[in-house]
Amino acid sequence: MRIDFQTSPETYRHWKIDIDGEVASLVMDVDEKGGLFEGYELKLNSYDLGVDIELNDAIQRLRFEHPEVKAVIMRSGNDRTFCAGANIRMLAGATHAHKVNFCKFTNETRNSIEDASEHSGQKYICLVRGTAAGGGYELALATDHIILSDDSSSSVALPEVPLLAVLPGTGGLTRVTDKRKVRRDLADVFCTIEEGIRGKRAVDWRLVDEAVPNSKIEEVTAQRAREFAAASDRPGDGPGVSLTPLERTFGEAHVKYSTVTLEIDRATGVATVSIAGPDDGAPASADDMLAQGAAFWPLRAARELDDAILHLRANEPEVAVLVMKTQGAPDAVLAYDAFLEANADHWLGREILHYWKRVLKRVDLTSRTLVAIIEPGSCFAGTLAELAFAADRSYMLIGGFEQDNRPEAALQLNGHNFGRYPMSNGLSRLETRFLGEPESIGAAQARSGEPLDAETADELGLVTFAFDDIDWEDEVRIFLEERASFSPDGLTGMEANLRFAGPETMETKIFGRLTAWQNWIFQRPNAVGEDGALRRYGTGRKPDYNRTRV
Amino acid sequence: MRIDFQTSPETYRHWKIDIDGEVASLVMDVDEKGGLFEGYELKLNSYDLGVDIELNDAIQRLRFEHPEVKAVIMRSGNDRTFCAGANIRMLAGATHAHKVNFCKFTNETRNSIEDASEHSGQKYICLVRGTAAGGGYELALATDHIILSDDSSSSVALPEVPLLAVLPGTGGLTRVTDKRKVRRDLADVFCTIEEGIRGKRAVDWRLVDEAVPNSKIEEVTAQRAREFAAASDRPGDGPGVSLTPLERTFGEAHVKYSTVTLEIDRATGVATVSIAGPDDGAPASADDMLAQGAAFWPLRAARELDDAILHLRANEPEVAVLVMKTQGAPDAVLAYDAFLEANADHWLGREILHYWKRVLKRVDLTSRTLVAIIEPGSCFAGTLAELAFAADRSYMLIGGFEQDNRPEAALQLNGHNFGRYPMSNGLSRLETRFLGEPESIGAAQARSGEPLDAETADELGLVTFAFDDIDWEDEVRIFLEERASFSPDGLTGMEANLRFAGPETMETKIFGRLTAWQNWIFQRPNAVGEDGALRRYGTGRKPDYNRTRV
Repeated sequence: MRIDFQTSPETYRHWKIDIDGEVASLVMDVDEKGGLFEGYELKLNSYDLGVDIELNDAIQRLRFEHPEVKAVIMRSGNDRTFCAGANIRMLAGATHAHKVNFCKFTNETRNSIEDASEHSGQKYICLVRGTAAGGGYELALATDHIILSDDSSSSVALPEVPLLAVLPGTGGLTRVTDKRKVRRDLADVFCTIEEGIRGKRAVDWRLVDEAVPNSKIEEVTAQRAREFAAASDRPGDGPGVSLTPLERTFGEAHVKYSTVTLEIDRATGVATVSIAGPDDGAPASADDMLAQGAAFWPLRAARELDDAILHLRANEPEVAVLVMKTQGAPDAVLAYDAFLEANADHWLGREILHYWKRVLKRVDLTSRTLVAIIEPGSCFAGTLAELAFAADRSYMLIGGFEQDNRPEAALQLNGHNFGRYPMSNGLSRLETRFLGEPESIGAAQARSGEPLDAETADELGLVTFAFDDIDWEDEVRIFLEERASFSPDGLTGMEANLRFAGPETMETKIFGRLTAWQNWIFQRPNAVGEDGALRRYGTGRKPDYNRTRV
Repeated sequence: MRIDFQTSPETYRHWKIDIDGEVASLVMDVDEKGGLFEGYELKLNSYDLGVDIELNDAIQRLRFEHPEVKAVIMRSGNDRTFCAGANIRMLAGATHAHKVNFCKFTNETRNSIEDASEHSGQKYICLVRGTAAGGGYELALATDHIILSDDSSSSVALPEVPLLAVLPGTGGLTRVTDKRKVRRDLADVFCTIEEGIRGKRAVDWRLVDEAVPNSKIEEVTAQRAREFAAASDRPGDGPGVSLTPLERTFGEAHVKYSTVTLEIDRATGVATVSIAGPDDGAPASADDMLAQGAAFWPLRAARELDDAILHLRANEPEVAVLVMKTQGAPDAVLAYDAFLEANADHWLGREILHYWKRVLKRVDLTSRTLVAIIEPGSCFAGTLAELAFAADRSYMLIGGFEQDNRPEAALQLNGHNFGRYPMSNGLSRLETRFLGEPESIGAAQARSGEPLDAETADELGLVTFAFDDIDWEDEVRIFLEERASFSPDGLTGMEANLRFAGPETMETKIFGRLTAWQNWIFQRPNAVGEDGALRRYGTGRKPDYNRTRV
């Protein structure tokens, strides 16, 4: 079964988007029978990857299709339960790789809520009536303002440790301490109380922003939404851009989109993603961009690359290396970048730039070896050059191949490489790369706009290796073979550490520290063994723990 | 077999300290037959926990016993090999808990090298002749200046990923990217080359500070040592303080020291560490402190607490909760604190303050639930109050127990609680605690010097719970029982995340991010399974990996 990350509101089974002027409601009403796999029912508004794929889609559409929406109210369609979190039977039955991938995607989705709030003038309010437990509370934590119904049955809880012997998997611990800045000992108490915390105490401990009697909660929520909306810089009217279905065809070993091709060689464990640059000039005006809509090259390429990466992660677990290539005219890419830069304050230009930022972060966080192959005819320029800087290594050809009359490989920088697309650590990819030699950033910046050939790029420290055509084939082949021979786990740990030098942010804490601990726990018999808590949940039998503290 | 963290130079089997005026040499010459356990030989200057226990002791003695030493040259007693890192057969045969504990202690030891350099005027130079591989290079990374012999057989390497399918376990990846700021793609190349990097290339990539021909290396090393020594503020002459053997007796379920008692209740999984405050006044002068030497209460208590924590970690793996208690006169603790503060610039006063900082960090990093029980007769004041702030939770008694005429419990703060003892994250424990309400730090500081009873401490947010004697016993008992019933792994992950809110440092990256990934990998069949790399190392058979990328 192929997991598909594309969906649209007409086919949602679990979410509903209601638009009322500048305020949208995102209503979670999970279809118990709508699980992605067999073997579990999505009771109590619990979720699996399928539910989150719809949420991710809804968040994207609110940004692109609804420029008029300035505040989003997240709420449950079920009055007794806000959300019970990730489905436990699903977790108990899933492979380790699926659990880890599921957590990564749900984390990225919650980050995208915070991104909409921070950068897109679209604030999120969470109305919690009933229980918000585990992933349910973590969903609330991703919003700007949590309103808890002040009654005897509404509560927030992170019961994972006492109940399931695992950690909250979508940033809960980090957001409790670092976003909501709950006092650490109170956080300790909170995370060990299965039934959670209610009312005033939840407010006093900073777990929620306000506790409101049920009789007034709709009124207060609407009022907060109006307040947030009033402070938004979104245009407040349409038209939006319809995120039409992607053009794509799946083959046995490839996926072809309009600008992106993903090819998979399962024998060698190498996948190649190729992105074609634009074949026309940038539009003349923002109105033209709006008129092009989802066909506008930067938006189309971002959506296709995003989908290709997600497909690779979820459906091709044995691919060790992702080779990144580009083809096209560098100048055309730069022209689109310049157009976007000129329209960075237009709501759609802004959305597209932030979307590229998120897609590039998704690349950084992909647990496969990333290598950029920079050959004749490629267009690693501006936005697309970021792929070379996201790579664990890059190989660039000096000169050309025999009987190949494509233009020699060139790297080309523009302003987008110097801060437009920060990584999770808050630095640009070049700042991260040159942490030890900040003067190299200036040297590279001074060459912005110039086509940099392989030897120049090598001197500037912008590529890992430059080889001529005599060595090229052997060097690249040996690297790919060698990489595929290493332990996938060792590489995952190594790359997760080497990619994010320098400062830490809540995001890097979630993906580095919290995720690594969770992955560790997801391997431990106390959680996933025959007698572990995940397997025994709901059986009436208590888990049997090995008591050794590690 | 009990692992003992106490040793002294007369009994070292693996290290030698040579003092030559203001420069010391720390010579690693591992006794192959001197392993802590059966089943492996410590070939090629490889190490196990026993080797590192001696190193830790040597670093401590250089600080306390040798105020004249301003620079330390770390070198090998073996001309062909600097150090081959952690012994692989030891790792392959060790339990998961031992591996993790071993890495934690070796990390703390390397941090103590950096602490001596940063705070104690004692700089470390590493002379690498032969191979410095894995943990061997990580040892070099902990020093201030790495001199590599420029010959065909000397190299630095982190071969763990290609060779063993694990990560460098003592901070290697983090120090490569964040301390030496090696470019991330070059770091990727470096970490996948089994044979390592030599000479000029190692300098160019910033892996070492200089590559020097063998004929000149002794001269250059001596010169660098003189340069570092010239910049040191250490006194340059004696006498030092002899770190005499600890007074301690081991019982079946306790260890008794002169000021510290550790009691272990294996049935409930609860250990209690009790620290007795000083029973005399602080000395009159720095000379008196020097004369008291290792008997000086703050130094004695720090050494005893340090040993008790290490003993607990290594030898009592099934203890879930560490209860921390104190007994004595708060004023006496405060008088010693005031004395140390007044002598903070005296070399010995400085050493003792930094040692307490390190011991408290060791407490923070101990993977057991930490709870402070603040009862009548206790002295949680100044330095000892930090134990309450290090705890995951604290319980304080309101009023007294019946028929107990000890003084009511009081917390008492002084300047030591506001920056003297930073945690690994660079913040004081109160700054970490009050990350979300910095005004509470000021409110607490305004009450410095006052005995704060339980209700006041509770209002100020300094304790988790205050109960009177009616509720006390049940509340504490229920907490201890509940905690011991949870999954040890879940608690380890939860506590590791909740304890270190706020900023990240190289230390928190090493203990949070890197360690968590390493622990994950240490569980994976690709490393530790029958066909995994650790088990197959040296057998001539290649490991057989499951290729799924997680």
